Amino acid sequence: MSDTDLETPDLPAPLPASRLDEDDRLVPQFVRDVMERVEAGDDEGARALVQPLHPADIADLFEQVDSDDRRALAAALSDMVDGDVIAEMNEHVRDELIDSLEPHQVADIAGQLETDDAVAIIEDMEEDDQRAVLRALDPDDRAAIEEALTYPEESAGRLMQRDLIAVPEHWTVGHVIDYLRADDQLTTDFWEIYVVDPQHHPIGTCMLSWILRAPRKIRIADVMKREQTLIPVDMDQEEVALRFQKYALISAAVVDQSGRLVGMITVDDIVHIIQEEASEDVLLLSGAGEGDINEPISESYKSRVRWLVTNLFTALIASAIIASFGAAIEQMVALAVLMPIVASIGGNAGTQTMAVAVRALATNQLTRSNSWRTIGREIRLALLNGATIAILVGLGAGFVFSNPALGGVIGAAMLINVGVAGLAGVLVPLLLERFDQDPAVASSVFVTMITDSMGFFAFLGLAVASGLVG
Amino acid sequence: MSDTDLETPDLPAPLPASRLDEDDRLVPQFVRDVMERVEAGDDEGARALVQPLHPADIADLFEQVDSDDRRALAAALSDMVDGDVIAEMNEHVRDELIDSLEPHQVADIAGQLETDDAVAIIEDMEEDDQRAVLRALDPDDRAAIEEALTYPEESAGRLMQRDLIAVPEHWTVGHVIDYLRADDQLTTDFWEIYVVDPQHHPIGTCMLSWILRAPRKIRIADVMKREQTLIPVDMDQEEVALRFQKYALISAAVVDQSGRLVGMITVDDIVHIIQEEASEDVLLLSGAGEGDINEPISESYKSRVRWLVTNLFTALIASAIIASFGAAIEQMVALAVLMPIVASIGGNAGTQTMAVAVRALATNQLTRSNSWRTIGREIRLALLNGATIAILVGLGAGFVFSNPALGGVIGAAMLINVGVAGLAGVLVPLLLERFDQDPAVASSVFVTMITDSMGFFAFLGLAVASGLVG
Repeated sequence: MSDTDLETPDLPAPLPASRLDEDDRLVPQFVRDVMERVEAGDDEGARALVQPLHPADIADLFEQVDSDDRRALAAALSDMVDGDVIAEMNEHVRDELIDSLEPHQVADIAGQLETDDAVAIIEDMEEDDQRAVLRALDPDDRAAIEEALTYPEESAGRLMQRDLIAVPEHWTVGHVIDYLRADDQLTTDFWEIYVVDPQHHPIGTCMLSWILRAPRKIRIADVMKREQTLIPVDMDQEEVALRFQKYALISAAVVDQSGRLVGMITVDDIVHIIQEEASEDVLLLSGAGEGDINEPISESYKSRVRWLVTNLFTALIASAIIASFGAAIEQMVALAVLMPIVASIGGNAGTQTMAVAVRALATNQLTRSNSWRTIGREIRLALLNGATIAILVGLGAGFVFSNPALGGVIGAAMLINVGVAGLAGVLVPLLLERFDQDPAVASSVFVTMITDSMGFFAFLGLAVASGLVG
Repeated sequence: MSDTDLETPDLPAPLPASRLDEDDRLVPQFVRDVMERVEAGDDEGARALVQPLHPADIADLFEQVDSDDRRALAAALSDMVDGDVIAEMNEHVRDELIDSLEPHQVADIAGQLETDDAVAIIEDMEEDDQRAVLRALDPDDRAAIEEALTYPEESAGRLMQRDLIAVPEHWTVGHVIDYLRADDQLTTDFWEIYVVDPQHHPIGTCMLSWILRAPRKIRIADVMKREQTLIPVDMDQEEVALRFQKYALISAAVVDQSGRLVGMITVDDIVHIIQEEASEDVLLLSGAGEGDINEPISESYKSRVRWLVTNLFTALIASAIIASFGAAIEQMVALAVLMPIVASIGGNAGTQTMAVAVRALATNQLTRSNSWRTIGREIRLALLNGATIAILVGLGAGFVFSNPALGGVIGAAMLINVGVAGLAGVLVPLLLERFDQDPAVASSVFVTMITDSMGFFAFLGLAVASGLVG
């Protein structure tokens, strides 16, 4: 919301090699140096070290130090921990820091930020604290934030900023440039301008480079691109991210239900959503919940133990199947030795297929048009893989136990289980998606249940049915 | 490389709801309609349907139809399948299509594209075909592409475009605007301009909005931001993506080893890398290789079966451990029934921790400064999880088998295995990273090996050591 001073855009740059390593990470020695000064009460020394850092690197510094040290660090750095730094911080580290501040301090920080960043800080606060912060804000900022909070969480309305440039279509390029130069209140950081009709409906978008390259007398309507990608204000942020990605957008106009321009989303706010959504899939598939190393332990415990207990029930099904073949195992203990191999390789094969299917669904590559083709492809792959492993395992087991029949049984069970794994790995995510469930959340429980149970059942069942045991 | 016509920037917009669903996917009926016309020889009808599509959607159309139908579709649409469409296509679908074209057709397409997109098409071709295409290109385009091909694959040099705006620092804002208006040969699409010294070293970056808001007489050196994030030309694309993300960049100057400006990378080329790199982790962790549903089956088979065979060897270790306790299992078949539970829950717990650690490493959140804190956190979590599951399983097994000692043994084994899983889940990726290996590639083999072996060993070993079986 605050306009950056035009003459001195003041974002410091990334650092010389001594503070950052080649991957832009703070080097451990630098982190230790800063904390040593903080602990020695040498605030000036700590500030001198941190001074040249980019806000993103100051935010990193807070993430790198121990939770207990963060408040002391914030006190030592005081006003260097400004809105830009807070906006770059990991959510959990930020919430912890914000909790330790007074409402008026939070309001100071929020007032320095663009609406979307201010909302991100305020939306997670307790209701009482939220109200106290809102009361301490400028009326303009408060109105903008309160309006943003009326939109659903993770929607375009929360992501958008309200400061944008909109001009009428009858203006010329010269008119636009004069307007931008004359009005001090306008935002300074924008990549495109929007051309609107008298009802404030966007009718075109114009890259700044087109304006700069066009003569002053040309009408803006002749420079702009009429076809635009508009974002409905209630669109989910994941869809917004996919749309930015698909159409290679730098910024996009956000419109309300009557089609009026209400805000703008820029790609820099989208980039971390793309990354988060892709990360989310690997974490969800592994049952690691939010899976952030800065998440409070109690929250991580809740999400992880829930997953383990769920998997305990699927493991019990597999155990019940084994128990029903107890007599066969007593008769031939080699069955107990070999049965985990069948289940384990089936589980691996299922996980491979499932990971591919979940990512293809998330990136809109796997759709209703190519579901059957993809299922067919995965089954063919599973049979190829299953046959290869079946031959290896069958020959190996037959040889080691000097029992060709046992080799035949484990080979056949392996082929069946890897085949079933391939089918389940693609069908389960597809069905979950069809029933509007997130395939990343529940797929692996079902797939593992199927491959474990089928592994034990096929192997032990074939052993009995073939007369290998009696 | 071709300049877009300034007056008619011609990217069509996303479509009315009838062709795309709410997630911007082509609706199956539309895909069928197009293919029906293609198959009926009604090229005009097919073209009329496809005409309003955005290039990204035409590319999607090719991905949605069966592999056999793609050549017929390309023939029917002919020149509508231009460089923009090809650049948006899935790599495997594109390679298949390019293989069916003559070198001069490929050269026509490459000539329409920016260097980075042209390179992406040409770099995967056979050497002979590549030479034929290069010969058919304009000398300027050829030189640019040949230079790009001298940089390593997946480096900044391959990602960058050479068309950029660089101006000397003594120019005024007015001078810059006049230059942009006067020279027809300049690129049209750019977001920032670079200010260079006489040796062509970048000394500042200037957002176009700052230029538009500044009076003509102001020197560009007083508007630009001096602190810039420069990208070395040989930097890996994953690092480039992390740098764009960390510093919220829209475009960045690429410099050679002597620090001279050689190109520019824009965020729209980075967005899909961020997404790919994040997807890659879930696919690598699952052993699904590249994991693309359009990848040829033979390639998918090779990468997946390699993974399954690797896991077969780790499963054999677990089997050997079970075999060494054969006598105990013969004596008490309940051990065979329960042992997969211990291994399976341990595997799940290890996978949770590993997914969190791998993502934290990939996003530079887990570093040398906070390794010990993270290890400590994960061990505490693992012990909490392990204790919870141990109590559940111990009570359950003791009750079901009316054998409290068996319950005690499985509970203790579970606590040990989940604890070990937590430790392995964070230590294995950290160690692989320390030895410059990609943690996503090999972590899960090691972690599964540890949790499987330890699960069987702890459970069966404790059963024998405690005197439960003789």
